[in-house]
Amino acid sequence: MPPIEFIAFDADDTLWHNETTFTQSQNKFKALLAQYHTPEWIEDRLHANDMRNLPQYGYGVKGFTLSMIETAIELTEGRIQGSEIQQIIAWAKEMLEFPIQLLEPVASVIPQLAKSYPLMVITKGDLLDQEVKLMRSGLLEHFTHVEVVSEKRAANYQKVLKRYAIAPEKFLMIGNAVRSDILPVLEIGGRAVYVPYHSIWVHEHAELPRFHDGYYEIEHLGHLPALLEQIGR
Amino acid sequence: MPPIEFIAFDADDTLWHNETTFTQSQNKFKALLAQYHTPEWIEDRLHANDMRNLPQYGYGVKGFTLSMIETAIELTEGRIQGSEIQQIIAWAKEMLEFPIQLLEPVASVIPQLAKSYPLMVITKGDLLDQEVKLMRSGLLEHFTHVEVVSEKRAANYQKVLKRYAIAPEKFLMIGNAVRSDILPVLEIGGRAVYVPYHSIWVHEHAELPRFHDGYYEIEHLGHLPALLEQIGR
Repeated sequence: MPPIEFIAFDADDTLWHNETTFTQSQNKFKALLAQYHTPEWIEDRLHANDMRNLPQYGYGVKGFTLSMIETAIELTEGRIQGSEIQQIIAWAKEMLEFPIQLLEPVASVIPQLAKSYPLMVITKGDLLDQEVKLMRSGLLEHFTHVEVVSEKRAANYQKVLKRYAIAPEKFLMIGNAVRSDILPVLEIGGRAVYVPYHSIWVHEHAELPRFHDGYYEIEHLGHLPALLEQIGR
Repeated sequence: MPPIEFIAFDADDTLWHNETTFTQSQNKFKALLAQYHTPEWIEDRLHANDMRNLPQYGYGVKGFTLSMIETAIELTEGRIQGSEIQQIIAWAKEMLEFPIQLLEPVASVIPQLAKSYPLMVITKGDLLDQEVKLMRSGLLEHFTHVEVVSEKRAANYQKVLKRYAIAPEKFLMIGNAVRSDILPVLEIGGRAVYVPYHSIWVHEHAELPRFHDGYYEIEHLGHLPALLEQIGR
């Protein structure tokens, strides 16, 4: 296979912790409604509403918050108090302000790789929120391109690669979500490195590819430079 | 001045009606809270909250909806009912599903210009919502590039022009918002056509440039082909 000439990273839960802030809000949400329902049922209903709204809202904190509010009204049959909904909105603002915590080896690995490769971020979610997080991460200067997409399907990757005239076989994507970061990239003939994060949003779950050409798995980003040595420039 | 080689359009209220759907929701919101406050005070408070939240939420329906909910709780001192907040969320979904109504001459002018120029859309707002609207508008095929940006500042235009290697003096931006579509483009040495829309969001208000090189004003998009003849290829 030709050498890798372009490396792209997913952002949430690949470069910095993100799912934990959603889990925290969800735990507070279950506590808020504890007098009405079991935690399991609350989680079920929230997930169902979140998934139903996804095609309209897209990914990100704002859509998730609107789904929490909707679920709270539904599960309390409208008895939820204004002050409680105000709390849900306050959690959203906390999530949007949440300090960026880089994953362990990111702060050293990214600047190191940036010396040898053009690096890109490809992420989905709210445009502004993702831009702000990248700015606050301190990593922005190391990336030559930042792409926020509404969905990480094969067609979206194709569009990005076409935009920068990158051949798929020279493109390496790195991320924690098999469904979004790995499978669509392999589908278009690119290569992909799966770096598992300790928790994954149920929506992102997908079967891992087995013995697929151009598919690699590492425990954490600290192993990426060695992998790149191995698969060759 | 060199000939125009690249034409970009704002989307909301330039290609299709948009502000009207926000105004409609705002009118329903004022009616919902009519027993508590005067329409003027409700509008004032909503606008204040919307502006305060803008740096965190960014532009678009979801952020506006969260600001409506927050304002409703605040203005009723928490007495707003769950069913009423559910209504506000239903308006949001209506706004996201609202049928695209093209402005009068757009359906004929855009395909016509697409034969002679590469056309681009540069719009701000929720990424997914803007993509969906463009898809539903039936205009997508006529645009070579679509850029959704978090804010229309000079730096953002510069980034887009750099990405496609477009010289500012060969770039023409067309839009209804002086603050977002006209001034920043003139600032970076591009040219801009102001096409007023009958109503403008207070936030977008700005003084019109007078006698600025590369600034043009037309009554509606139907006059654009003639203007382009006049300022020359």
